[in-house]
Amino acid sequence: MSDSETNSLDNLVKRDSLVETNSDWSDEEVTVRAGLPVGSLATGLCYDIRMRYHCEVRPTSEVHPEDPRRIYYIYKELCRAGLVDDPESIHPLAPQPMKRINARSATEEEITLIHSEAHYAFVKSTQDMSDEELVYLENNRDSIYFNRLTFTSSLLSAGGAIETCLAVARRQVKNAIAVIRPPGHHAEHDTAMGFCLFNNVPVAARVCQNVLGDQCRKIMILDWDVHHGNGVQKAFYNDPNVLYISIHVYQSGRFYPGGDEGDWDHCGEGAGLGKNVNIPWPDQGMGDGDYMHAFQKVVMPIALEFDPDLVIISAGFDAAAGDVLGGCFVSPSCYAQMTHMLMTLANGKVAVCLEGGYNFRSISKSALAVTKTLMGEPPERLSKTTPTQDAIETVGRVMNIQAQYWRCMYPKPPQHLTGADRLHDVIRAYQAQQLYENFKLTALFIYRTKISKSFENQVLASANYHERVPLIVIFHDPPELMGYPDPVTSRLEAHNCWMADTTKDYIEWILSKGYAVIDVNIPKHISQTPATGKFEKEDENRPTATEELANYLWDNYIDFHEKREVFFLGIGGAFSGVVNLLINRENLYKRVSGIISFVAENPVRAVSSNTQVWLSKWYRDNSLVFVSESHSVWKDKERKPSKRYGKLYKSSKSSLSEMMTESQQQVFEWLADRADEALDETEDEIDEDLPMKG
Amino acid sequence: MSDSETNSLDNLVKRDSLVETNSDWSDEEVTVRAGLPVGSLATGLCYDIRMRYHCEVRPTSEVHPEDPRRIYYIYKELCRAGLVDDPESIHPLAPQPMKRINARSATEEEITLIHSEAHYAFVKSTQDMSDEELVYLENNRDSIYFNRLTFTSSLLSAGGAIETCLAVARRQVKNAIAVIRPPGHHAEHDTAMGFCLFNNVPVAARVCQNVLGDQCRKIMILDWDVHHGNGVQKAFYNDPNVLYISIHVYQSGRFYPGGDEGDWDHCGEGAGLGKNVNIPWPDQGMGDGDYMHAFQKVVMPIALEFDPDLVIISAGFDAAAGDVLGGCFVSPSCYAQMTHMLMTLANGKVAVCLEGGYNFRSISKSALAVTKTLMGEPPERLSKTTPTQDAIETVGRVMNIQAQYWRCMYPKPPQHLTGADRLHDVIRAYQAQQLYENFKLTALFIYRTKISKSFENQVLASANYHERVPLIVIFHDPPELMGYPDPVTSRLEAHNCWMADTTKDYIEWILSKGYAVIDVNIPKHISQTPATGKFEKEDENRPTATEELANYLWDNYIDFHEKREVFFLGIGGAFSGVVNLLINRENLYKRVSGIISFVAENPVRAVSSNTQVWLSKWYRDNSLVFVSESHSVWKDKERKPSKRYGKLYKSSKSSLSEMMTESQQQVFEWLADRADEALDETEDEIDEDLPMKG
Repeated sequence: MSDSETNSLDNLVKRDSLVETNSDWSDEEVTVRAGLPVGSLATGLCYDIRMRYHCEVRPTSEVHPEDPRRIYYIYKELCRAGLVDDPESIHPLAPQPMKRINARSATEEEITLIHSEAHYAFVKSTQDMSDEELVYLENNRDSIYFNRLTFTSSLLSAGGAIETCLAVARRQVKNAIAVIRPPGHHAEHDTAMGFCLFNNVPVAARVCQNVLGDQCRKIMILDWDVHHGNGVQKAFYNDPNVLYISIHVYQSGRFYPGGDEGDWDHCGEGAGLGKNVNIPWPDQGMGDGDYMHAFQKVVMPIALEFDPDLVIISAGFDAAAGDVLGGCFVSPSCYAQMTHMLMTLANGKVAVCLEGGYNFRSISKSALAVTKTLMGEPPERLSKTTPTQDAIETVGRVMNIQAQYWRCMYPKPPQHLTGADRLHDVIRAYQAQQLYENFKLTALFIYRTKISKSFENQVLASANYHERVPLIVIFHDPPELMGYPDPVTSRLEAHNCWMADTTKDYIEWILSKGYAVIDVNIPKHISQTPATGKFEKEDENRPTATEELANYLWDNYIDFHEKREVFFLGIGGAFSGVVNLLINRENLYKRVSGIISFVAENPVRAVSSNTQVWLSKWYRDNSLVFVSESHSVWKDKERKPSKRYGKLYKSSKSSLSEMMTESQQQVFEWLADRADEALDETEDEIDEDLPMKG
Repeated sequence: MSDSETNSLDNLVKRDSLVETNSDWSDEEVTVRAGLPVGSLATGLCYDIRMRYHCEVRPTSEVHPEDPRRIYYIYKELCRAGLVDDPESIHPLAPQPMKRINARSATEEEITLIHSEAHYAFVKSTQDMSDEELVYLENNRDSIYFNRLTFTSSLLSAGGAIETCLAVARRQVKNAIAVIRPPGHHAEHDTAMGFCLFNNVPVAARVCQNVLGDQCRKIMILDWDVHHGNGVQKAFYNDPNVLYISIHVYQSGRFYPGGDEGDWDHCGEGAGLGKNVNIPWPDQGMGDGDYMHAFQKVVMPIALEFDPDLVIISAGFDAAAGDVLGGCFVSPSCYAQMTHMLMTLANGKVAVCLEGGYNFRSISKSALAVTKTLMGEPPERLSKTTPTQDAIETVGRVMNIQAQYWRCMYPKPPQHLTGADRLHDVIRAYQAQQLYENFKLTALFIYRTKISKSFENQVLASANYHERVPLIVIFHDPPELMGYPDPVTSRLEAHNCWMADTTKDYIEWILSKGYAVIDVNIPKHISQTPATGKFEKEDENRPTATEELANYLWDNYIDFHEKREVFFLGIGGAFSGVVNLLINRENLYKRVSGIISFVAENPVRAVSSNTQVWLSKWYRDNSLVFVSESHSVWKDKERKPSKRYGKLYKSSKSSLSEMMTESQQQVFEWLADRADEALDETEDEIDEDLPMKG
């Protein structure tokens, strides 16, 4: 060793004595609990064959989905995986097999923490009923069956949930899974429904709160069963200490249990406001990417802020791939991922309680993946990780409404603005001014009582609109806006918002050719209600109101000269009003020289009619329809779209403004050809009654 | 047992044979790997005392932060926790102690996968240098010291990282931590800097890719060291297979290593575009809530989509509470939480490599929390879970730019709009029209070459502005906008955006009193550049331009009559131009009868001047300043704000429009009193040279 080495090693030694200099180090503080106090505990398992006694007293040929064997096959799967010390198990066993948690019958006192005495008594009474009575009950209730052992199984199911949650909350196990049935999350205070008699999880939650007090005050219940847990939601709707989050298929309230209770805007009430979070999928078919998205954007941020003392998973596995009732595609790995995420909470105190799930294979595989994760096996990678459009929209809506109740959730909803104007009025006024300054377009008088007041200022025409020159009537959506809102307040800075108004270029060209133009802006929100500060969908009666306006314009401002050339240019959803006019007004089309329309997101409208046999052919021959590349009409590669959709062109762009810029030249040439051609025709008087072309 | 029970139990048996009916169940498929193949593996630990040889050849009185004892104390902490089978350890040991991974010297071939031959040769050459030469190097390089064992330690540090990553990638351990030094993430291709000689993690990553091929192709490097890992970023800047995410303090490029490379807009280049993610904190002082927010919103979604084969954590612990260099407040539990989140990736293949971190106690506690998490201990709960405004804004900006590269990231940036107008022009045109229609306000001519063209149309006055009546000059920000953008495309629907324009009410009242008004709108973005579609900050020269305009207006349109009453009404940031005018223009304040201003977010401006001794007193006596409840000026409960801020009132609202509505009556009465009072005064000619009041 060279001098300097020894030298430096000396320093090392010398310095070790100086350690205090670096920080406020004290040995008491440093001393830590040795080993892995929690990590070295076993994962708990609750399973009891007596929960299989509940079954149909008179099985039909068709096996009932809530089948006693559900829990048996899950248990068997855990054994096959070597996680349970059981004769059935294959070896090698996991280094530390699961610890048994014995189910017991829940007491009447426990059950009635959530349910009415009457309900308890009713379920109890089924013990002594005749088969006929039991069958009668089954036929006269909502999705529920009974036998004389239903009561026994139900008490064991609830008791199993209680013992499992207590064992986790008391740290007798690291975490646990309860493979129990009958399920519970549909059962309400006074009602058995949806295969559920007693609501196991809420009963267990209340017992934990009562027994353990502040040590287990705040409880989070995450319900990933594909159905909404109406019973759980009701049980804690005004309770600030129980956070209920449910991810389920909603289908506008048509999916079981139905009604609007499972919708995103049901957030709890009173002290419980914000402690109820529904993530309602618009339809079936959701998968891993969607569930991960919901967890990343809503479940975990809210859970972290709520900071529960205990997490209970209402684990139905009917969103799993293979479950016909659920119709979704969640993989076992995704269940593992979600479990792993929830394990970051409550210092790992996670209790999993089985709810629904009806495909033996799917529920076994899913429950196995969840259990392995609880036991410390890292979750496997997902094959699909990106969310669908449906998921992004649903989750976005949930974020918007929950932002009122959770500091972590953004953007906050726009606050009510005193005396606020809708921006579409602001913009139209600006357009009117611009169109006047640049092209001397002026507003046409619209007879108010006849047409919605909204159309005031929306119809502008060039001075020559009544002369015998080709006339282009433009029906367009409001111009597209883009902007960055403040990520926190949703406030927009005017200088960071932009407006694209591409009709300008078209109008300029039209006038340069000496043609006339009528520019009609169709707001997406027709009625005159003042700005609410709430998000509003596009008006339903927009197409009707547009048709009405189009009719009015046709009679008063368009159809002067029999021989005049009239073209319609439709931009976006506004065009559907024009389509309605063509379909509903006999022979009007014969007076139209051509139609151009741009379609971005709105549906491509078919132009045809039973009474006007020539209409669709005419439309095919006299239209230019530009459709965005991303539009669904292109989805079906095989079948080419029907000619009733007109002459379709696929645009390489996706936004109206871009599409219109892209196709300018094509449109201008097409218009010019027809306008001039038609002018020639009119010079040598052809029979007016024939359609202009084709 | 009653008949029906046996009956039902029979069914049970009978049905078990029907199991196939329920699903495509086959026994091969069902058979699964027994136990917990990964979960039962040990966590790896790499530590070698020889890495402590590297130290200052001539220690100064002041101990260097990158101190050899750093790794010693971390190792000691792991022993004290009973995680390592070592004489030092206290018992009981963890059921499965950590598995040793031996460090070895990295080879020249390995080092030169990332560094130049020259750099390797240079570091090697320090072995044989004299103390003088070594000290000379230390003095002439950026934050780096040498001794004759620096080369030895550096090779071991890199070799330790390599062996650790290989052991994880090969699944010889469940996961692992390498307690190594000197650190690496600042070291560049040809440069040693920032306590770093060889860049350990990139070297290890490349070796894994070369040795394991497709089995370890995609690697994610998460760098939570408080400094930006410039060396790592450079090493993979154009590499699509290495995702580098760094969370660090940036301080507009002033924080080490400095420059703009660590900013959010450095996203990689070429094939690597989007594979470089910087999350640059604007300042020190960040904590758990901020790091969790970054992980939830950016790190995990991007990581999930990237789906790495291996995750390497560049784990500096200098963002930990207690580290003076970092000045942040990340708790050990937060490090545990972040580790647990990353363990969802790559089927749990996570290798942790030490980088910086200089407080022995902080780094030991943090490393312990991370290690326990790797070993299966659930992370502890956090005391603070909500992000700061700074974090929300930083992360929001990162999301906006990364949305170009990641499908999971929303909102997508607004696409470029052809011929787009800035909305603030649209809105001002509308205001002008409204103010004309309602109050006959007209635009005052602004001499173009003198004042920015932006002010065209921004100055509107009532017809009587030049008469000898009280005049209220309003300087206001553009009206506030609110809106819901599309969560995916950021497109805004005009009918879902609202504009609050509360000056209307004020102008109406002013005119109703027979006073005159000049309404000046000050856009937040002055220059005339066309809309870029990019987010733009508020103009820096806005106050100057505003003052210039105010000056111009004063001379040409305000200061006609010596005895006229002039009031200024400032709304938002626009007011600072008026303040500048009062401060910079001698004695102008004596001609002003009163000032009202509304302050929401912009700073409360002090009105005082060395040359005008009476100014601040005058301001105190002749102003009404309404400040939003949330404003920082109220933060300091003890000290009441200086009188130089004027007469302050705390508003119960937070937005300008709400504040103005709230205080209308108070303002109107105050204005009326002074205006009339002053009129009386002027009738009996008082001395013009005294300030009007007080």
